[in-house]
Formats: sequence, structure tokens, C-alpha cells
Amino acid sequence: MMLGPPSLTRLAECLVRLPGIGKKTAERLALYVFKMSEEEATALAEAVVDVKRRTRLCSVCCNVTEEDPCPICADDTRDASLLCVVEQPGDVIALERTGQFKGRYHVLQGALSPLDGVGPEQLRVTEFMSRLKGSEIAEVVLATNPNVEGEATALYLMKLIKPLGIMVTRIARGIPVGSDLDFADEVTLARALEGRQKV
Amino acid sequence: MMLGPPSLTRLAECLVRLPGIGKKTAERLALYVFKMSEEEATALAEAVVDVKRRTRLCSVCCNVTEEDPCPICADDTRDASLLCVVEQPGDVIALERTGQFKGRYHVLQGALSPLDGVGPEQLRVTEFMSRLKGSEIAEVVLATNPNVEGEATALYLMKLIKPLGIMVTRIARGIPVGSDLDFADEVTLARALEGRQKV
Repeated sequence: MMLGPPSLTRLAECLVRLPGIGKKTAERLALYVFKMSEEEATALAEAVVDVKRRTRLCSVCCNVTEEDPCPICADDTRDASLLCVVEQPGDVIALERTGQFKGRYHVLQGALSPLDGVGPEQLRVTEFMSRLKGSEIAEVVLATNPNVEGEATALYLMKLIKPLGIMVTRIARGIPVGSDLDFADEVTLARALEGRQKV
Repeated sequence: MMLGPPSLTRLAECLVRLPGIGKKTAERLALYVFKMSEEEATALAEAVVDVKRRTRLCSVCCNVTEEDPCPICADDTRDASLLCVVEQPGDVIALERTGQFKGRYHVLQGALSPLDGVGPEQLRVTEFMSRLKGSEIAEVVLATNPNVEGEATALYLMKLIKPLGIMVTRIARGIPVGSDLDFADEVTLARALEGRQKV
């Protein structure tokens, strides 16, 4: 792909496989690595290997962790009756950043997408259901993405949870804070109206 | 920065130092590395280290290379009377991709930028001047970027080369192919007019 020394080409070829990194960006990054100090490059390489070596899935919530159970599952101060279901580890990070959620999580490691060959067996649904049974969980918050796959996953899980008599909620979909009604698409606006609340 | 396992945070912190990689992208990439196979991650880490280990600057043209002199400098079929001066190794790659240039290169490894503390001593100007003296070079093409730093660098080099009686040219600045006159800024348009050619 790149007209340069083989080692640079090889690095660019590795980088272009990362999500959101195009050919040009990969080349630019590879050339930047060449300009890095020896220590910086080694630190980067070790950090990559370390992630693979040290992390695994938490046996309880299926989130990325270095210890098992993960710090969130091991934290006794968190509300064990509240369980938030998300698609990816990144979603847990995003929700934790709000500082608003004091329950625990379950990470599905994906969303239903028949076209991509992702059915319930490919997701951490079995683990999720066995967590619900005989537990003290009173509410499940479905926080899958508000897109086709996420909605389908939420619907599927809802049908599984309902018979257990556990309350199921879905995160609100509406106008993002700081944005403009003008720019919102009609589906989002419709959802915002539908989900309006008394003030 | 990131609320996750320490090894993930460490990788994200390494990645955020790369150009064009923001906090969110760094997190996303770190989580992607977690999802990579062991082999992919090792290949990436080794590619990073390899670039530092195998590459150096060509002693002739100051481009990135694994062999010294670099393949372009060592290629006897290339026109030794034509020398193209660029700022960065990436510029050589871009020019080589055109397949139009059959001369040799000199990579300055930067452009004059007094505000950033980059003077002629920080660039490969000494190497450049000693290449010119007593050589068969008949034309120097100044292919530094068409921005303030690049133009200043071109001007500076022109003044150095002129006394040697070598022809100096500057790459054409004008309307990019495929774009629209409407969208071009006035400076570019003025340059396009100025550099018009008989057809």
C-alpha cells in the first residue's frame, strides 16, 4: 500500500485494520511512530500487548477487567437490585462517567444483528439470564443503543425478562442536551414527544 | 482519564499522544485492541517496535529508510541532475505515488517556523547544501508545503541556491484537480491566474 520502508508499510497495514483509521491516517501514524523516541514506541508496544495479556471478561458481568470479579461487581456499596444491560464495555465507561448510576452492569458484548450472523448465542445472554434467576435484582435498565440492532436486542431481552416479574425499563430517547430542535431528525423528535414528562 | 482496567487506560494514554487521535478515539481503539486476537495484537506491537529498530535517516537524502543509502538514492536509473526538496518523508511517498518524478529527493525533516523554535539548524539544510556543491544537479524543485512555513522555507533555500547558478523551480500552486472554482479561496485563485500557462 505505502511506498516506503517495509517496516513502515507493515505498521501502516496493521493500523489500517483499526476502526476509523483510513489509509492516509495509518500512513501518517506510522511516520509519527518513526519520529517517536525509542521509549515512547516501546511504551506503546507494551501497552498493546499488556491489554491482551492482562484483561479478560468478568465472569459475572462480562465487562473487560483485570481482576475477576471486576471492581464494579466486587463493589458492595453498589445497588445489587439494579442491573443495567449494555452492548459494549465502552458503554459502561460512558455511563460511569455520568456518575449517576449506582447499580451494576451486564455487558452483552454486542447486539442482535442477524445479517452479521449475531444471534442470542453470540451474545452474553445465557450469563445474563442466569444472573437474573434467584437474584435480588428488582429492575433491569435496557441501555442498548437506540438503533435498529440495539432496539431489537432490547425487545428480545424484554420478552425474556418479563415472565420473571422483574421491572424492565429502557433509557430515554429524545433530544440530546445542548442541541437544537431544528437539527433533530423526526424519529428522535417523535420519541422526545412520546417520552415527555410532567414538570 | 478512562474509567476502565489500568492496562486499557495506559494504552489509551499512549494512543492519545498520536496526531489526530482524540480522547474518545483513543478509548475506542484501546477497546478494539482488547477484542483483537492475540496474534493481531502481537503483530501490531512488533510492527511499532520494528519501525524504531529498523529505520533510520538516509545519509544522502535524509528520508526514512531501512538501508543506507535509501532505495531512491541508490537507484542509478533516476535522474541525478534533478533534486526535489520536501519537508517530510510523507511528502516523498505522496510524490512517488504520482509516478511522475524521476529525480531524487532531499527531506528537510521540517519547515522553518521561528515561533516553534525551528530555524535552519533544526532542518537538514547543511546536508542539502553539501549535496549541491560539486554535484551534477541542474535543477532544484522546491516542493515544500504551500503554507506560511513552507513558503518561508522555499524562499530561504532559493536565496542559498541561487548563487550556485543552479536552476530553482517551485511546484505550481493553483486549483486542485476535480475541485470547483467557486470553492477556491482568493489566494489560491490568484496563484492559479498568476501561474497560467499557454495551451
